[in-house]
Amino acid sequence: MPNEETPKTDTTVSGLGRVQLQFTPSGTDVRVPPGVTVFDAASWNGLAIDSTCGGHGTCKKCKIQVIEGEVPVSRLDIRAFSPEQLEDGWRLACVARANGNLKVDVPPLSTRPKAATVGVGRQVILRPAVQKRYVELVEPTLHDQRPDIDRLRDAMEDLEFEADLSVLKTLPTVLRKNDFKVTAVVVNEALIAVEPGDTSAQNYAIGIDLGTTTVVATLLDLVTGTPMAVKSMLNKQQPFGADVISRISATMMDPQAAGLMQTAGLATLNELIAEVCTEAEISADQVYEIAIAGNATMVEILLGVDPEPVGVAPFITAAQKWPVFTAAEVGIELLPSARVFLFPAFGAYVGGDIVAGVLATGMDRDKRVRLLIDVGTNCEIVLSNGDQILTTAAPAGPAFEAASIACGMRAADGAIEVVQVTDEGIQLGVIGDATPVGICGSGLVDAVYVLHKAKLIDDSGRFVTDEDALKIAPHLASRLLTREAGDRIFVLHWDGEEPTVYLSQRDVRELQFAKASIATGWRLLLEEVGLVDDDVQQVLLAGSFGSYLSPTSAIGIGLVPKLPVMRIVSAGNVAGEGAKMVLLSSTERSGATTLLDEVDYVELSDRPDFNDKFFLELALPS
Amino acid sequence: MPNEETPKTDTTVSGLGRVQLQFTPSGTDVRVPPGVTVFDAASWNGLAIDSTCGGHGTCKKCKIQVIEGEVPVSRLDIRAFSPEQLEDGWRLACVARANGNLKVDVPPLSTRPKAATVGVGRQVILRPAVQKRYVELVEPTLHDQRPDIDRLRDAMEDLEFEADLSVLKTLPTVLRKNDFKVTAVVVNEALIAVEPGDTSAQNYAIGIDLGTTTVVATLLDLVTGTPMAVKSMLNKQQPFGADVISRISATMMDPQAAGLMQTAGLATLNELIAEVCTEAEISADQVYEIAIAGNATMVEILLGVDPEPVGVAPFITAAQKWPVFTAAEVGIELLPSARVFLFPAFGAYVGGDIVAGVLATGMDRDKRVRLLIDVGTNCEIVLSNGDQILTTAAPAGPAFEAASIACGMRAADGAIEVVQVTDEGIQLGVIGDATPVGICGSGLVDAVYVLHKAKLIDDSGRFVTDEDALKIAPHLASRLLTREAGDRIFVLHWDGEEPTVYLSQRDVRELQFAKASIATGWRLLLEEVGLVDDDVQQVLLAGSFGSYLSPTSAIGIGLVPKLPVMRIVSAGNVAGEGAKMVLLSSTERSGATTLLDEVDYVELSDRPDFNDKFFLELALPS
Repeated sequence: MPNEETPKTDTTVSGLGRVQLQFTPSGTDVRVPPGVTVFDAASWNGLAIDSTCGGHGTCKKCKIQVIEGEVPVSRLDIRAFSPEQLEDGWRLACVARANGNLKVDVPPLSTRPKAATVGVGRQVILRPAVQKRYVELVEPTLHDQRPDIDRLRDAMEDLEFEADLSVLKTLPTVLRKNDFKVTAVVVNEALIAVEPGDTSAQNYAIGIDLGTTTVVATLLDLVTGTPMAVKSMLNKQQPFGADVISRISATMMDPQAAGLMQTAGLATLNELIAEVCTEAEISADQVYEIAIAGNATMVEILLGVDPEPVGVAPFITAAQKWPVFTAAEVGIELLPSARVFLFPAFGAYVGGDIVAGVLATGMDRDKRVRLLIDVGTNCEIVLSNGDQILTTAAPAGPAFEAASIACGMRAADGAIEVVQVTDEGIQLGVIGDATPVGICGSGLVDAVYVLHKAKLIDDSGRFVTDEDALKIAPHLASRLLTREAGDRIFVLHWDGEEPTVYLSQRDVRELQFAKASIATGWRLLLEEVGLVDDDVQQVLLAGSFGSYLSPTSAIGIGLVPKLPVMRIVSAGNVAGEGAKMVLLSSTERSGATTLLDEVDYVELSDRPDFNDKFFLELALPS
Repeated sequence: MPNEETPKTDTTVSGLGRVQLQFTPSGTDVRVPPGVTVFDAASWNGLAIDSTCGGHGTCKKCKIQVIEGEVPVSRLDIRAFSPEQLEDGWRLACVARANGNLKVDVPPLSTRPKAATVGVGRQVILRPAVQKRYVELVEPTLHDQRPDIDRLRDAMEDLEFEADLSVLKTLPTVLRKNDFKVTAVVVNEALIAVEPGDTSAQNYAIGIDLGTTTVVATLLDLVTGTPMAVKSMLNKQQPFGADVISRISATMMDPQAAGLMQTAGLATLNELIAEVCTEAEISADQVYEIAIAGNATMVEILLGVDPEPVGVAPFITAAQKWPVFTAAEVGIELLPSARVFLFPAFGAYVGGDIVAGVLATGMDRDKRVRLLIDVGTNCEIVLSNGDQILTTAAPAGPAFEAASIACGMRAADGAIEVVQVTDEGIQLGVIGDATPVGICGSGLVDAVYVLHKAKLIDDSGRFVTDEDALKIAPHLASRLLTREAGDRIFVLHWDGEEPTVYLSQRDVRELQFAKASIATGWRLLLEEVGLVDDDVQQVLLAGSFGSYLSPTSAIGIGLVPKLPVMRIVSAGNVAGEGAKMVLLSSTERSGATTLLDEVDYVELSDRPDFNDKFFLELALPS
């Protein structure tokens, strides 16, 4: 990508390996990697092409006409079109691969598929993996002795599936008790339920952001594409440690811990599931799929895999991609045959939550140079430049969670989350407008930023002497105290004579270590693709911490590259958004898997230059 | 097929739609349907071609050279051979399809695969679905962070698989506790176990003949292809009825019966499994697959499917083909992830046991006109003539099981199983050389045959008058008695003055009905393909009853076509043999599924001519 200083006009640099698709009559113009189907290219860009089969080439509804460019005739095209139509460029969009530039005409839809806006402003066409079909079967006779399952299969010719044992067990009874009028539920290629009568209007799935700290469940109506209920709660594994490393350590110390944590994780999920179902007034048996985006450790613990190898060098996961499981085998309390989709992971410390985040932010479909940073104890960083996507993990330590901070606390009532310096002194933003009782991560970043800006903290991170303080900022100098053992603090709040909330010298150091780790991470990724800070066009801050963090402070302490503040964007719960996307769209789901081939994982811990760079990053930007 | 009277010389009649393959240097010459792979054609005929991947085209070991004829170059061939080799006719046998006559050179084997003789004299090349691989993996480093499952996958490149959750759960621990030296167990495309160290020499499977009356289990050593232990026991569902119809009726009368029968069926299987494992001194955890051949009702009850629709017109099964289940989900006590292969069925009354029987007898690979008859309450009949295979079920009723016979009993100690007429009187063969206490099915057939031959029973099945009896056979006439209510009996055994074992007029009628039903069945099948009795070149009598039945008597009462006695062959437990075959050979297993497309099921119960033909068959052949 060109520097802003030296713009390059050669567009092939950023479009390397992309082909251009022009859609008429919409006029939509998109660039995609060669080999992508016309259907997916359209769908990714919110352009609807008719389809009922989920892209298996069986419904033959996704007809398009290639006006310019070449698309070879496929085996399925021959069945769908006459020789004249083929000659005129008619093809099925789901098998038509764009290997060169194309101009494609999309006929008006016979049935208008719905689109939903999810992720970071992304439009996805509703094409869920869960498909419900109401069928009225012809009753068997001596001249038509097709087995029950074949009778059902024949009535849904556009879907291919294998039936679960649970379905086969009840099928004869369900069919006969309901005059052969039933609704079949197919997820991908599995028949997971056959319900009495017509239930096709009730079709639900749950997306889970399985965080180390917080778990969020969103119940989606797959018919309309809208969320019906959202609930979150603290992960019940909290007592085993605040971050993944302490959770893994717990399993190494106590052989029972892994099992207890698995139980706690499942209890969290199942409680949330019950809550969203209750709120939406549906039964958990009507939820046919659950998509879980979590880091590698959370996923392994949930499945009952020993996570120890994730926690110790060389940091190895059991699997990068997981098979599809049933709710019953994982222990999730839904319809037992409901399917569980687990996001694949880029690496041991860049997990499925980040894959979901890359999907939700469309980092693979943007030509800009963008950074996605999920700030936390383990900080995940993704860099994309339109040609390449790199990712890494930076061990930031617990500073941002405020766990190792003298007056640190969670972002709860009484936590200082904003600190500003005014002419009179300091101004605090406190959660819940309460009396300050501690400081949370965003307040810590603010405090260090404003005190460094006020020159009470020097570039090396040290509090200046009392003498200098009086000279530099007399209205703040009285807050700088030296305590027993020579420890210096900056008082944010007094209760009477007693300093109750303060920033210690050690706190500043903790934050410096954390931000240095993260900055080393993104700077090394930029180096890998030959870019510098100024090339970055957008920084997406993921997760709840990202939402609270002041972009000015983040830039100010060097946590993110020095960009115009507008380009530092809080992206919210991108993991949860990604989970919703894969439930709403099979196309997006296959996109998530494709990402594994497109994204390169960079391991920092074995880089010889890591330490040198890290120490350089410790300083606060002057 | 030609009549014996009018032999036709045009061999294309019997070879219709077959291609010829000539193998060098063995000189083997085979005819197979077009489209069959060279690998399968060789394997079916006991000719070994090297392979380790089970025919997935990945091991690239099955190299052959096409000397005459055309085989197009496949995508896989391009990867396996140089352009010069392709020019010289080198191909991979597993993807080389014979669409015309071929002459093929098979190179000497690098590793000699074993062959086993199973079924009715069939040779199968050992190529089990279960594959065990001992691997020594390179330990991970920071430069090689492949997830555990990918590390394992990369070490077995010739196998493609998805891992069970149970395997993923323990994989990190098993690998690290055993210095990354483990044995992987793959069944088809599923990784079902990873065991410590090298266990590749222990590889077992169990074949089950799941009969309504008797269940037989055979434990197979898949490394050598030899049976290690065979055990049989009465099906514990016996108390619910002797035949499938009474078992289904039980479920209709008592809503608990189906569940109780499922439990009883599983108990039978699990007891047998424990017995064969004990005898072979292995653990049930070392059994990786079980193949079950049973009729549709037995299979549905075992799986917990409501069998009622099988029992009432129009006789509908839940499924014809079953997915592969795990032992745990079915309730079979083996390694929980062991796979359960259930034979598919031709129809509601020609089930998986008969598919196994057709496979074991090679009826699909023989140019002769052959009948396979499994005599029982429900009698299954299969006719093949080298071009077509037809099958039907004849409701024979309980006569052969001797359940509705006055002095009927099971083939147990004291049962008369052979009846002969001598100059002095009659001679009885009694099981266990004991005092006769009853008569079993084969004794019944014998008795009716010899008395009809002695003219004490006329062609219509009636006992002659006492007057005529004295004239015709004075040495037997005293055995013919008239009892109260005018009921006539022929005494086979007296205890003192008391006739204790006898044949009643009603018994003769029962047998006539049974044999008429069966004879109508095979005669209608013959008619369907334009053949007559004399065209039949072999009759295979399946099942244990088939082993005891005297061919002479069977011909004599018209149960089977009138052939030279040598051509009536007892085929034994063909269902069990078929079950063994599919465990030993993946090729045979795919053959079993292919049979469903090759065999046409003929429903007799709705044929308008059935009744007329049935009444014609009631008479005993004069």
